[in-house]
Amino acid sequence: MNEKQTSELTVAGMTCGHCVASVTEELQEISGVNDVQVDLATGRVRFTAAQPVSDAEVQAAVEGAGYQLA
Amino acid sequence: MNEKQTSELTVAGMTCGHCVASVTEELQEISGVNDVQVDLATGRVRFTAAQPVSDAEVQAAVEGAGYQLA
Repeated sequence: MNEKQTSELTVAGMTCGHCVASVTEELQEISGVNDVQVDLATGRVRFTAAQPVSDAEVQAAVEGAGYQLA
Repeated sequence: MNEKQTSELTVAGMTCGHCVASVTEELQEISGVNDVQVDLATGRVRFTAAQPVSDAEVQAAVEGAGYQLA
């Protein structure tokens, strides 16, 4: 069985498509993460992962992109 | 004599540092252009050029970065 986890978070400070791209790219670099969806207007981010992803990894990715978790 | 022209323009739609970087990079690709300064808050852009730069070149660069002249 090929189970996927879906995670949701909110990212503060994104203002444009470049910001969306930066957050998306950083999250995609986490092992197992794919299908990252970012809603710029709300800051809502959703992604699926083929393996468990820790909150610390997510936070590091968001902060690595230059943003904060809301 | 090594004369430089200084040009000023206003760019609409920049919202973050990524936008500033995009506009800066596109303008720097115009032959002779250097020292591009962008003020994000006002959209004011200033650059110097070692040779004349046409309005059309500037407009193409700004639009190529995904923005509009104000």
